[in-house]
Amino acid sequence: MTRLQGIFPPIPTPFERDDTIDLRALADNLRWWNRFSFSGIVALGSNGEAVHLTPQERLQFVEAVRKRIPERRTLIAGASGFSTSATIALIRGMHRAGADLALVLPPFYYKPQMTTACLDRHFRAVAEASPIPIVLYNMPANSGIALESDLVIRLATHENIVGIKDSSGDMVRMAEVRRGTPEDFSVLAGSAGFLLPALSLGADGGVAALANITPAACLALYDSAIRGDSDRARALQLRLVEPNSAVTRRWGVPGLKAALDLLGHHGGPVRAPLQSLGAPDRRALRDILERAGILPGEGTVESPER
Amino acid sequence: MTRLQGIFPPIPTPFERDDTIDLRALADNLRWWNRFSFSGIVALGSNGEAVHLTPQERLQFVEAVRKRIPERRTLIAGASGFSTSATIALIRGMHRAGADLALVLPPFYYKPQMTTACLDRHFRAVAEASPIPIVLYNMPANSGIALESDLVIRLATHENIVGIKDSSGDMVRMAEVRRGTPEDFSVLAGSAGFLLPALSLGADGGVAALANITPAACLALYDSAIRGDSDRARALQLRLVEPNSAVTRRWGVPGLKAALDLLGHHGGPVRAPLQSLGAPDRRALRDILERAGILPGEGTVESPER
Amino acid sequence: MTRLQGIFPPIPTPFERDDTIDLRALADNLRWWNRFSFSGIVALGSNGEAVHLTPQERLQFVEAVRKRIPERRTLIAGASGFSTSATIALIRGMHRAGADLALVLPPFYYKPQMTTACLDRHFRAVAEASPIPIVLYNMPANSGIALESDLVIRLATHENIVGIKDSSGDMVRMAEVRRGTPEDFSVLAGSAGFLLPALSLGADGGVAALANITPAACLALYDSAIRGDSDRARALQLRLVEPNSAVTRRWGVPGLKAALDLLGHHGGPVRAPLQSLGAPDRRALRDILERAGILPGEGTVESPER
Amino acid sequence: MTRLQGIFPPIPTPFERDDTIDLRALADNLRWWNRFSFSGIVALGSNGEAVHLTPQERLQFVEAVRKRIPERRTLIAGASGFSTSATIALIRGMHRAGADLALVLPPFYYKPQMTTACLDRHFRAVAEASPIPIVLYNMPANSGIALESDLVIRLATHENIVGIKDSSGDMVRMAEVRRGTPEDFSVLAGSAGFLLPALSLGADGGVAALANITPAACLALYDSAIRGDSDRARALQLRLVEPNSAVTRRWGVPGLKAALDLLGHHGGPVRAPLQSLGAPDRRALRDILERAGILPGEGTVESPER
Repeated sequence: MTRLQGIFPPIPTPFERDDTIDLRALADNLRWWNRFSFSGIVALGSNGEAVHLTPQERLQFVEAVRKRIPERRTLIAGASGFSTSATIALIRGMHRAGADLALVLPPFYYKPQMTTACLDRHFRAVAEASPIPIVLYNMPANSGIALESDLVIRLATHENIVGIKDSSGDMVRMAEVRRGTPEDFSVLAGSAGFLLPALSLGADGGVAALANITPAACLALYDSAIRGDSDRARALQLRLVEPNSAVTRRWGVPGLKAALDLLGHHGGPVRAPLQSLGAPDRRALRDILERAGILPGEGTVESPER
Repeated sequence: MTRLQGIFPPIPTPFERDDTIDLRALADNLRWWNRFSFSGIVALGSNGEAVHLTPQERLQFVEAVRKRIPERRTLIAGASGFSTSATIALIRGMHRAGADLALVLPPFYYKPQMTTACLDRHFRAVAEASPIPIVLYNMPANSGIALESDLVIRLATHENIVGIKDSSGDMVRMAEVRRGTPEDFSVLAGSAGFLLPALSLGADGGVAALANITPAACLALYDSAIRGDSDRARALQLRLVEPNSAVTRRWGVPGLKAALDLLGHHGGPVRAPLQSLGAPDRRALRDILERAGILPGEGTVESPER
Repeated sequence: MTRLQGIFPPIPTPFERDDTIDLRALADNLRWWNRFSFSGIVALGSNGEAVHLTPQERLQFVEAVRKRIPERRTLIAGASGFSTSATIALIRGMHRAGADLALVLPPFYYKPQMTTACLDRHFRAVAEASPIPIVLYNMPANSGIALESDLVIRLATHENIVGIKDSSGDMVRMAEVRRGTPEDFSVLAGSAGFLLPALSLGADGGVAALANITPAACLALYDSAIRGDSDRARALQLRLVEPNSAVTRRWGVPGLKAALDLLGHHGGPVRAPLQSLGAPDRRALRDILERAGILPGEGTVESPER
Repeated sequence: MTRLQGIFPPIPTPFERDDTIDLRALADNLRWWNRFSFSGIVALGSNGEAVHLTPQERLQFVEAVRKRIPERRTLIAGASGFSTSATIALIRGMHRAGADLALVLPPFYYKPQMTTACLDRHFRAVAEASPIPIVLYNMPANSGIALESDLVIRLATHENIVGIKDSSGDMVRMAEVRRGTPEDFSVLAGSAGFLLPALSLGADGGVAALANITPAACLALYDSAIRGDSDRARALQLRLVEPNSAVTRRWGVPGLKAALDLLGHHGGPVRAPLQSLGAPDRRALRDILERAGILPGEGTVESPER
């Protein structure tokens, strides 16, 4: 198993006006993203509106992605159910559809009962049964549950649990996990908002919504940090923090899709209850993208397409 | 449409040892519950492990309940999806399976985007499309989202939104909702832990996990409060607060099922990641139930079976 | 020691334009409040801006109150320090100034260290050293610390800890405390927002900011509940919930003082960093007070002055 | 005004067995700390138990520190009151006692009223009246209030507000503040737990409890990061995360004082309600310090005393 390293965009799922998945738009987007040196793709994450897709749509989407990205690029698919058995079934489907790894949230409905012991048992049962390796998904803002460092460190000893995508932004936890896990356990920042701080601690890369709209800048940030060019890395990180918040905390998936539209790619509608950005928010987003040099015409960010 | 009044147990879903739904156990439990003057049944709520059931199992379960309870008893079925369209599809299924009303959580994955405007649009779209009336389900402990009073009051003007089950225990919100909604909008306490306080404010009844294991006491509490026998109501409420916490906050569904087992009814296993109570917790639960006069032999709570 | 029962207004501290304490305004206000059948007065609570007063001002204020209220009315004074020794010193001062009881918050700066064991030791040390009885003050919205039921029940066994003012609104905790403490341990609702629910559980009364501005209605609510006139109690509670939120959650002490001004009594300025209500908020407050029949001219609330 | 850069230990306040301040112990500790290349000292911060000291003791303590540290070392003194006027009075006292700058928390009692506008007005009034420059103190774990980036950026334009100590660990906020403030506005990490991530974003240094017990390692971490030796910086950061949590999150000031005792310096007792560490916790702390090479005998951390 190769260690996960580098930048992975968690791609959004494009929809037609009639709410069905728009595979042509997906193909167009992927053609663009394939021009950048991403290490792989995350499908069906939070940005992929996985919770809004039927089981059939999920399979269809992952199959479509697999066909349209290079063989050597890792395909990580979200596969989180509320029960242990549903999670395993989802992962098996993702495996058949071509996913290389499964990204798994803790079950988050019965929060008070999700003790460390309970989560330990869940993730082990899932890892045992899974035909593909598991990446833990720590996303307390959406799930309401934070995975404690001790739990992650214990789970990292399982040979089929190979990494964590940590979207919490808690650097103390990230340092604890990095220190407590072997080198081949992959620690990925879950957002470009704290990518450089995470890399400073030895994280292996990031799964960053922002990479969907400004691939070159996110890759340049990663490369600068790895090369030890800390001035350039810092300048990029500071420039990216505002557009990153725009397409995550502030406007979420609707913001990310609106940004893709503004860039001439395929964002398109979100599924209800999410609502597309209205005109004033869209204008505010445009301003932010222009200030950060992401919208064409500014040209301040080079394009290291490879 | 009849107004919802009185006590509704949110029944658990019994499983066989092989994890399939145990319809015989369900029938036995319902035979017992049918002997009490409940106003109806809530199926597929949080206590029903709805999130652990497949779509097919949910239909099967609601059909089975419908066949085994008297015609005049209201059957409320949980039907909460993450997308608006999935929620509507679930409700239609519940309608076909025999549910009288649908109990609907706010979609709770994209929490920061679930503004009041967004939730308003979601619930209206659901209510428009639903063939049966909707009961709002406020359950911030599990969902991480609290429905604001103003939103509930606005939604109450929709003719197909007929009530709220409020499990938050926030009495100020309950008073605001009671004051701002018409009399025929039903306000139900979501737990026996604050049933009497809610009734004091004009709530119409309660959906109480505790009613599954001590139907007579919960009904007696409701009846005393309605009759104005405040001393008896208070004594019952104070007696029930400890066992109520045991089968809700403290041990959740595993506690509720263990209590049913201890009472000689059918609790049985929970689905993973939930874990059945271990022996020490089971003993502690037994002590609590004995102290509260719920376990047979104590005989302190009369049995107003009707 | 008499048990605390009935309604206690937590009075605000009036200031001159030059920010000194306005003792004439205090005297005027007390002359009005003395016409109502309050059981006592709370001075230097959250509504009294205790944290904004110097030690000398606190003594001066409590002495002034003591002189201006009837002997038989209980004077409870806030006396909360961050250290155990400072708390004891404050209480001794309050005793000398004429307070009958001290209202004591948990020390809330080192929140993670304030374990149950630590709080237990603090309150016992305070109670041992205090020349007057202690009332526990549970106010998580301001302090960030909630007193657990088990702790309160244990502390209630100390002969110098005679009650709790619970502003949390958590009815399950209130029921647990009421059930676990002797009858002569006084349980007081910390707000008129949930006074009736608290009384339904056996609370002994309330410390209600709202009682400062509508004494008659708060007393009538208490009396109706005690007499068992649940319809009238409920009608009053529902009517009072909006003005109560206005002078607590929404606008806080500035709202309370603005309401006193609107009523022709002495609210006056708050101390910075609190800011007096601006004109638009003042108009919104006036509307709320008129809708609730609190502002003169509406006359819907009788005045049972005694 | 020199820009704040480098490492500042927030020193604890030593007490005699009779609870008075132990100035000899302070002198001994300072003699040790003076051997290291700290940029200055923070007195009366959270680690200094400022909230446990009387106004007189605070003056006495800061005077004593000023006399015992080199002239060129910056002395920052905590000076946070609940009212604007009390805060100003405290700062004036600190100025007279010899402090170079004042570290000021937002007033945190009336949390719901502490809007951005209100905090803006408070800090400006304080900065206007203060004879010495102000450092903002963001410490949500203790205060319950987080200073928003926009507020900090606006306040940074005031010539007498020269920096922020941010203990929140929120790297997105830190990046926003760093990006939005001029270079001579000092951004200091409030803990060694995320010192390297903060430095990667352009922070100027740190106020780190851990620097009290392992000065050399904290200074080496800072120096490595500044020199661009990212491997060494990372190794130090990962080694320090566990002992840092021990003397902050986990055991707080009692842990910090116990660590000083274990190292042969002067920790001594804490003031109640804080409780000194018991024997088992002390042993666990010793193990952590040994594992991190902080306790003598391990010798893995060099001592760049200068």
